[in-house]
Amino acid sequence: MSDAPQVGIIMGSTSDWPTMENAARTLEEFGVAWEAEVVSAHRTPAKLYSYAESARGRGIKTIIAGAGGAAHLPGMTAAITDLPVLGVPVESKTLKGVDSLLSIVQMPAGIPTATFAIGKAGAVNAALFAVAILANESEELAAKLAEFRARQTSQVQGAKLPPLSLDA
Amino acid sequence: MSDAPQVGIIMGSTSDWPTMENAARTLEEFGVAWEAEVVSAHRTPAKLYSYAESARGRGIKTIIAGAGGAAHLPGMTAAITDLPVLGVPVESKTLKGVDSLLSIVQMPAGIPTATFAIGKAGAVNAALFAVAILANESEELAAKLAEFRARQTSQVQGAKLPPLSLDA
Amino acid sequence: MSDAPQVGIIMGSTSDWPTMENAARTLEEFGVAWEAEVVSAHRTPAKLYSYAESARGRGIKTIIAGAGGAAHLPGMTAAITDLPVLGVPVESKTLKGVDSLLSIVQMPAGIPTATFAIGKAGAVNAALFAVAILANESEELAAKLAEFRARQTSQVQGAKLPPLSLDA
Amino acid sequence: MSDAPQVGIIMGSTSDWPTMENAARTLEEFGVAWEAEVVSAHRTPAKLYSYAESARGRGIKTIIAGAGGAAHLPGMTAAITDLPVLGVPVESKTLKGVDSLLSIVQMPAGIPTATFAIGKAGAVNAALFAVAILANESEELAAKLAEFRARQTSQVQGAKLPPLSLDA
Amino acid sequence: MSDAPQVGIIMGSTSDWPTMENAARTLEEFGVAWEAEVVSAHRTPAKLYSYAESARGRGIKTIIAGAGGAAHLPGMTAAITDLPVLGVPVESKTLKGVDSLLSIVQMPAGIPTATFAIGKAGAVNAALFAVAILANESEELAAKLAEFRARQTSQVQGAKLPPLSLDA
Amino acid sequence: MSDAPQVGIIMGSTSDWPTMENAARTLEEFGVAWEAEVVSAHRTPAKLYSYAESARGRGIKTIIAGAGGAAHLPGMTAAITDLPVLGVPVESKTLKGVDSLLSIVQMPAGIPTATFAIGKAGAVNAALFAVAILANESEELAAKLAEFRARQTSQVQGAKLPPLSLDA
Amino acid sequence: MSDAPQVGIIMGSTSDWPTMENAARTLEEFGVAWEAEVVSAHRTPAKLYSYAESARGRGIKTIIAGAGGAAHLPGMTAAITDLPVLGVPVESKTLKGVDSLLSIVQMPAGIPTATFAIGKAGAVNAALFAVAILANESEELAAKLAEFRARQTSQVQGAKLPPLSLDA
Amino acid sequence: MSDAPQVGIIMGSTSDWPTMENAARTLEEFGVAWEAEVVSAHRTPAKLYSYAESARGRGIKTIIAGAGGAAHLPGMTAAITDLPVLGVPVESKTLKGVDSLLSIVQMPAGIPTATFAIGKAGAVNAALFAVAILANESEELAAKLAEFRARQTSQVQGAKLPPLSLDA
Repeated sequence: MSDAPQVGIIMGSTSDWPTMENAARTLEEFGVAWEAEVVSAHRTPAKLYSYAESARGRGIKTIIAGAGGAAHLPGMTAAITDLPVLGVPVESKTLKGVDSLLSIVQMPAGIPTATFAIGKAGAVNAALFAVAILANESEELAAKLAEFRARQTSQVQGAKLPPLSLDA
Repeated sequence: MSDAPQVGIIMGSTSDWPTMENAARTLEEFGVAWEAEVVSAHRTPAKLYSYAESARGRGIKTIIAGAGGAAHLPGMTAAITDLPVLGVPVESKTLKGVDSLLSIVQMPAGIPTATFAIGKAGAVNAALFAVAILANESEELAAKLAEFRARQTSQVQGAKLPPLSLDA
Repeated sequence: MSDAPQVGIIMGSTSDWPTMENAARTLEEFGVAWEAEVVSAHRTPAKLYSYAESARGRGIKTIIAGAGGAAHLPGMTAAITDLPVLGVPVESKTLKGVDSLLSIVQMPAGIPTATFAIGKAGAVNAALFAVAILANESEELAAKLAEFRARQTSQVQGAKLPPLSLDA
Repeated sequence: MSDAPQVGIIMGSTSDWPTMENAARTLEEFGVAWEAEVVSAHRTPAKLYSYAESARGRGIKTIIAGAGGAAHLPGMTAAITDLPVLGVPVESKTLKGVDSLLSIVQMPAGIPTATFAIGKAGAVNAALFAVAILANESEELAAKLAEFRARQTSQVQGAKLPPLSLDA
Repeated sequence: MSDAPQVGIIMGSTSDWPTMENAARTLEEFGVAWEAEVVSAHRTPAKLYSYAESARGRGIKTIIAGAGGAAHLPGMTAAITDLPVLGVPVESKTLKGVDSLLSIVQMPAGIPTATFAIGKAGAVNAALFAVAILANESEELAAKLAEFRARQTSQVQGAKLPPLSLDA
Repeated sequence: MSDAPQVGIIMGSTSDWPTMENAARTLEEFGVAWEAEVVSAHRTPAKLYSYAESARGRGIKTIIAGAGGAAHLPGMTAAITDLPVLGVPVESKTLKGVDSLLSIVQMPAGIPTATFAIGKAGAVNAALFAVAILANESEELAAKLAEFRARQTSQVQGAKLPPLSLDA
Repeated sequence: MSDAPQVGIIMGSTSDWPTMENAARTLEEFGVAWEAEVVSAHRTPAKLYSYAESARGRGIKTIIAGAGGAAHLPGMTAAITDLPVLGVPVESKTLKGVDSLLSIVQMPAGIPTATFAIGKAGAVNAALFAVAILANESEELAAKLAEFRARQTSQVQGAKLPPLSLDA
Repeated sequence: MSDAPQVGIIMGSTSDWPTMENAARTLEEFGVAWEAEVVSAHRTPAKLYSYAESARGRGIKTIIAGAGGAAHLPGMTAAITDLPVLGVPVESKTLKGVDSLLSIVQMPAGIPTATFAIGKAGAVNAALFAVAILANESEELAAKLAEFRARQTSQVQGAKLPPLSLDA
């Protein structure tokens, strides 16, 4: 990952990494430069401000923010920068991410956060969506994205079901 | 309200005032000085920081924060000040405040927000709770609170049900 | 709206227009050319295919898709095109948009839809997000977006609460 | 399974097979010919179209479609064919199939999908329901179904509870 | 409606008729003969038994059962007859039909009920589904259904959105 | 209502009376003597204790307790007396009685409260259940209850649906 | 268990026994004679009718009915007999008993089922409630119940917390 | 713990201790004297009354009450004392603490309970909030709290993410 990062991945805690690394890994597949940091809206609010305020200037094009429970990181990031912010609701222990989802998606008119599925699927998809945004400006990425989608389609197309086992 | 305010009431929008004025009115009943302001976590994040950072220095003892939907105001206020923050989930249009409640109450370990019921009852109770906190330092307030509770008890005690109407 | 549209707004039914026109109106504010059409995943599946397949070629940069209930339009659009698709969960009659939200946001890994709040706020925010995507390619739009955000902040900053009425 | 299939079983992913094979196994018990394929509404939308469009012509009488999360497969299949479509909400990881259920059952007026219970019970019941539809045209199947139901009744009738253990 | 009814519509209470008459009206459109009766699983359990037991013998091919709250009518009908039973969750006063939906759809393996959307859309769709079942045996109905679907598609295709009003 | 009451009806507030009077009216139909009082677990905890402790001694055979929101009255009454306590979840403003229902029904092992439906139906049914308990000791009441049930059955049996209006 | 049973325990499946045996064990503690049988509303509807219709004549005073998912057994039993019916929502696999609870508690006015907590606690409490009903007719049982409650109180009273471990 | 306790920790059962000991441990970190007892609203209602009534007189400044399911302990404690009561919803087996949360937070106007997150995070935060209340009266505690918060911030600030593993 030698280039200046175009996508910033932030999360409230190191415990969100097993979810959020799926975003990083997906960006790697596309050769999109990324950075990842722990930024907690609640425990490091000043860092949240400086991170969000400086992002555009540092060349970041979109920010992927993951958080669980009362998940304020995506919305607060979107409040400070007008870069596109992609929110990933991390699965929470008791409420299984319903709290995370509602805390992220139900933003008031004026400050959008694009929200994705709870957990790993959401992290992968936020990265794919970041690629789709960047592909608007890059024919190379657009081609890679089209190829990824075609490959995905043909993998599912070729999927074989196992033979039916007659025991329940 | 001549004295320096001891309780700060903040809310994300003027549309939250019909809920939050119930907190103000309750504090008035106890003669507790208060201030009220619109502070939006999402639309005025810098004001949120300056409000929360300056509150203790200005003599505020506790902050009542009301917000609806993806309600980040109480938690973000608590992230910036270590004053006690009391969160009021304002009823939201589609999800009836379930989103507000979960966004406020499900804070991670380390940054507490005391959460109250959705809507008007929560605003009244946050104010009563603020009085209870202040009463720890003030015999006068403690007496007023005891008297309020006794009066409330005797009002309910004396409540009369209407006669039974036999038509359904 | 003379230019070729950059944003396509689609919705499952004319009854979604009172929600989705908020997206159109927001784009108008920014001078972003848009088009709006009824495309029902369920009642016009062939039109869905042709709309989604032809969008990129016609110069569309992002699609805003609104639907309610078992809301398949955003996800199916994203399945057919790799343009960024922004989903708006329209409030449904009995379940208040919870069904719409889950049908849109819980996409499997591989096909992302960016999801926004239920109802009008979501429609406004999807449009603002579309502007943010386009602003990555346009200094003029980036300036307009920054100005919009600054104006929004100062409006909230200047908001005045009415005097406290002492009657409950 | 030598005859031309009367029931098509489709599912979004091979990971749905442990649920959906219960439909296949149930059809086997009745000697109803079936076919099973992975058809993903999101990853193979063109296959979805061709599968659904060709089904009636190939002699399929009813389609059982299972999917999880933002489960669009049953509704989109029903959008393309007017054969009876039976939807099985597959249990999803975080939301336990509530998302799957609402995405399948809350279809708008005009395009029905018959929905069954979340998970294995739903897969078995979709198959039994397919048999019931076919039994309208086949006295042999009607007799088999009656016999199945009678056997099921007598098995439950004869069920013995274990002796009470007095330790909690 | 001169012919012997092929579809039985039953409901727990006359108060369900404003929902369930949408099923009757839809069947009328297709010229399918129907009957409608109040049959309460809870208040007329004996009638439920006799209705369900006698249905097949009287020429009924499918039963549409609507009920709200703890909605036992569809499942109990399916328990007594092996005809296809289509359940319509009627919107309930406090829980908006979530109770009705879960009571109908979550049947155990062995006794299926095909479940449709909460409220009017579900009633229309249950009737369309009944037509689809009957169309398996009737070329005339199959043609009518195809025509209905084509007409529906072209109506949506031709839908015009009103001009954008610039006032919010 | 001349006799000593056998059933005590209590509720947290006079605002619960429109729900709870349905219990009183039902008991009247059966000639069962009742009393009704406002007893708030939260605002009159001492009255709750004295009411519950003295109930058996005053000849009360069962207590019907209605409350909304964080509904503690039924469970706390059951904690103080070992008379059968019947809980009625009153519909709450924002959460429609889901909070009331869970607060009443989810009692820990050791202290039962019999819970009925949210709102008016629950109040009627709690009264019918009280009659059923008393009918174990009274042939006269048992006969009245049987007659009530028979009358209810024949009313539903005789219910007529209005003619189908062909306008949607 | 030599006496004629006073309490009938029924459940939809042998798989409900690990929950429902807690009711049986609790009745044993009080020396109340009980019987337990598998009666499935859906798979043995005729047995349900005969069981419920014959219960009063055989000396049963109250019926405890446990079921999971679309749990129709308690309500249907109450529809057929006017004995007091106590419903226990058995925890279901995917929805954790929310479906069971709503299917049991949300009965329409006219046919009550007394509902208890989901799972084991509900089974214990239904049995304690049955004892409370029987205690209205039996001084011996009333004394046993009072003694049980007193013993339970003193056990909790004497509960000791372990020393605080300082490692998180 | 040599001083007279300033914070009382109560819980409904010894099984709540693994959650509630996190409150105790947090208070220990701050050197705040505490006491912990099992007080069950349902099984020891008299102890609840005496505990709550005597708390202020014994020097207790705030009470942390944890309970699960139909969680009445916090609200009933607040009904008896006007000390600040902090409620911790303990995770329940089937409903994961949703029942606990609603039973605690949805208190009617007049009797506040400050509610925290479900489970361990809530217990830690209730303790931190108790410290914040006490810090209003103690410069020493205020300093410790500020130091705790600063340390927490710098720990999160310094958190390092592991290197990206390229295997999914």
